[in-house]
Amino acid sequence: MDFDTIAAISTPMGEGAIAIVRLSGDDSLAIANKIFKGKSLTEVPSHTIHYGHIFDPESGDTVEEVMISVMKAPKTFTRENVVEINCHGGLVSVNKVLQLTLENGARLAEPGEFTKRAFLNGRIDLSQAEAVMDLIRAKTDRAMSVAIGQMEGRLSKLIQRLRQELLETLAHVEVNIDYPEYDDVEEMTHSLLIEKASSVQKEIEKLLQTSNQGKILREGLSTVIVGRPNVGKSSLLNSLVHENKAIVTDIPGTTRDVIEEYVNVKGVPLRLLDTAGIRETEDIVERIGVERSRQVLKEADLILLVLNYNDELTIEDERLFEAVAGMDVIVIVNKTDLPQKLDINRVKEIAGEYSLVTTSLLEDQGIEQLEDAIATLFFSGSIESQDMTYVSNSRHIALLTQAKKSIQEAINGIETGVPIDLVQIDLTRTWELLGEIIGDAVHESLIDQLFSQFCLGK
Amino acid sequence: MDFDTIAAISTPMGEGAIAIVRLSGDDSLAIANKIFKGKSLTEVPSHTIHYGHIFDPESGDTVEEVMISVMKAPKTFTRENVVEINCHGGLVSVNKVLQLTLENGARLAEPGEFTKRAFLNGRIDLSQAEAVMDLIRAKTDRAMSVAIGQMEGRLSKLIQRLRQELLETLAHVEVNIDYPEYDDVEEMTHSLLIEKASSVQKEIEKLLQTSNQGKILREGLSTVIVGRPNVGKSSLLNSLVHENKAIVTDIPGTTRDVIEEYVNVKGVPLRLLDTAGIRETEDIVERIGVERSRQVLKEADLILLVLNYNDELTIEDERLFEAVAGMDVIVIVNKTDLPQKLDINRVKEIAGEYSLVTTSLLEDQGIEQLEDAIATLFFSGSIESQDMTYVSNSRHIALLTQAKKSIQEAINGIETGVPIDLVQIDLTRTWELLGEIIGDAVHESLIDQLFSQFCLGK
Repeated sequence: MDFDTIAAISTPMGEGAIAIVRLSGDDSLAIANKIFKGKSLTEVPSHTIHYGHIFDPESGDTVEEVMISVMKAPKTFTRENVVEINCHGGLVSVNKVLQLTLENGARLAEPGEFTKRAFLNGRIDLSQAEAVMDLIRAKTDRAMSVAIGQMEGRLSKLIQRLRQELLETLAHVEVNIDYPEYDDVEEMTHSLLIEKASSVQKEIEKLLQTSNQGKILREGLSTVIVGRPNVGKSSLLNSLVHENKAIVTDIPGTTRDVIEEYVNVKGVPLRLLDTAGIRETEDIVERIGVERSRQVLKEADLILLVLNYNDELTIEDERLFEAVAGMDVIVIVNKTDLPQKLDINRVKEIAGEYSLVTTSLLEDQGIEQLEDAIATLFFSGSIESQDMTYVSNSRHIALLTQAKKSIQEAINGIETGVPIDLVQIDLTRTWELLGEIIGDAVHESLIDQLFSQFCLGK
Repeated sequence: MDFDTIAAISTPMGEGAIAIVRLSGDDSLAIANKIFKGKSLTEVPSHTIHYGHIFDPESGDTVEEVMISVMKAPKTFTRENVVEINCHGGLVSVNKVLQLTLENGARLAEPGEFTKRAFLNGRIDLSQAEAVMDLIRAKTDRAMSVAIGQMEGRLSKLIQRLRQELLETLAHVEVNIDYPEYDDVEEMTHSLLIEKASSVQKEIEKLLQTSNQGKILREGLSTVIVGRPNVGKSSLLNSLVHENKAIVTDIPGTTRDVIEEYVNVKGVPLRLLDTAGIRETEDIVERIGVERSRQVLKEADLILLVLNYNDELTIEDERLFEAVAGMDVIVIVNKTDLPQKLDINRVKEIAGEYSLVTTSLLEDQGIEQLEDAIATLFFSGSIESQDMTYVSNSRHIALLTQAKKSIQEAINGIETGVPIDLVQIDLTRTWELLGEIIGDAVHESLIDQLFSQFCLGK
């Protein structure tokens, strides 16, 4: 396709050792050449690096000492001519270099526009483009693996295979519509149709089954610790954070009033919400009535509800159980180092099907069991292979869910003998829905919206 | 020289489009090759770029999709083999790539260690290395120009020329020590000595004269606005920020409780201190007694003292004058749109030699005059040429000041006829002091300390 030449700073803002101004488009080389003192960039071979200086053609002033990477189409990230100007990482000088590219013919890139071009120019499909962003935002090694797998086209290939099978099935349906007089063909096609459609349906279901885990791997499991004051919430938080590697304790740029901590519990990334609240005060119960706490609970995927072994069950404890009714809860009976005052049978009665773990955080007892309980709850206890294809993206999950429904309707239709052209509509719809995952026939506005969530310069 | 191979993340931390892991040292190529699926990096030509994947040799898992830049010694930043691994900018994946380089033979670089190697391997001298950091931290275009000039060796060349002249002068002194019996030679040398030494002294003085401006260009002019409540401090702040381009309003990673704003006033970068205090409250005067305000005043290079044209001079106003006694002050009489109640003659009496500007910030009057007053105060009103060699670094200024003193003693010695070997000591000392600027014979501990102030990965 034919696009104008775009430019952006592709490294995070801030003082660093290296900052990169990236250009993509037909005129990348010519534009960079206008502001570069060194070899003529339009004459150098592709995929080579050149030392020189960026200067302002108007004033003649030298602006930066740089290394310039020249990558010519089509073997580039965007499949266009790409120039990367590798600067010393100063804010003023990098901005000046960007400004000079803009003054000499480039346009400031929109967020995600480089990746969007890679998609529009056919180098990657939409699910691969989305994986690029997942990789950037990955919080654990496994989330990274999932993103890498998707970026390499693992999901794309599976989706393409399913679509191919659907196309073949549709061909059979065509035969039935175009040549309804051949009764013998229809009989054969009927059973083949069900077989083919069911096979696709099963694969879609299998993919959807990974979505819960995939989403958790991608986004982390939002976890809230609740309990009355002094039951050991801070100790639990500290145990989880210190026993496990804290993944991200402080991302620059995040707001400071909600502090999140990520810990990696047996491959499950826990995103511990409202840890600031726990660290600062022990009054979560008092705040249960407060809107913000309700909001935090609502966002949680997992509740760790802490009770005191050394105290009787109170009305506040029971109210906590009510507040988290219907959610994924693990009940932790803490302080088993102290004499029992808690009526465990009563707790088991209220807890119902929730997992129940006893701990003495003081004596470092029971943490292992708690971690097993968390892993069991979310991975059914099994360690999934690294090679599995996960669906983790909400957009993909929604499309797969619709596709599953659509193909189920096709199967129902075949079984109940509805007119075959109605079955054709359902199968075609399934094929289209799967196509949207990899960006086939997706509305332009959706594409714009998807890429606008990317970071600048990507 | 022979060093081990170092590695670091050379882009600022944060989610971005590109992150770079940089390696430098003999084994850079071999180490990168161990974790790279793609072309054999040890066999590719220098200054070329290669697409491929980083994988974990132990598990076999793919970790990142990368572009690798291979730059072989000696034409590199460090004069060693340099490999730059250009990753998608995810925190987890970039850290994983760094970790893999460390597991496969690299050592984590110390802050500034890449630039330190460029210095130790003789690619740049110490003043050029320091300029690299100045460039990264530059707050205005002119600060950037000064840093670029120094990086390109402008200061180095001047210093080298002065040292060469000193060496020639010392040669003459040697003649006098070695052949004191030649009376006729001494007579000739005596006048030549004074001439040579005076010439060097003048050049040092000229350089030192740029230091005040150089320091301001480099660090910005710390400016504090003081005045009683309701005299128009916020209006003044807003006028300065809005009339001029705000250079940096919020650098990620800086602490939030002291907000600084940079504005470019006719080439003078003002660093407006405690603007948060002004923005939030109008009670600076009340806080004058407070330790923190005293501290802010102490750090200031320039005080903008605001008075109210529409009010009589109060005891608080006079106390402000006392608090800033001996500093660079511009007195601003604001609210000239309202009836005069202020005794201007009394103000002029107290203000003494301070510049005095009248403004009506409400009616946008007098800002231009204020800006002229600021520029006059710091650049004596003249616009300096871009080509001027500035000294801006405190270390350089201190060394030049000592060198000036040392050569003055040499000149005094020659004039008063002290033994020529004493003169020789002073001249040699001058030569050594100038050498320290460019890193000749500098103590290792000083070098370590200088480079430790650099950012990681530089």
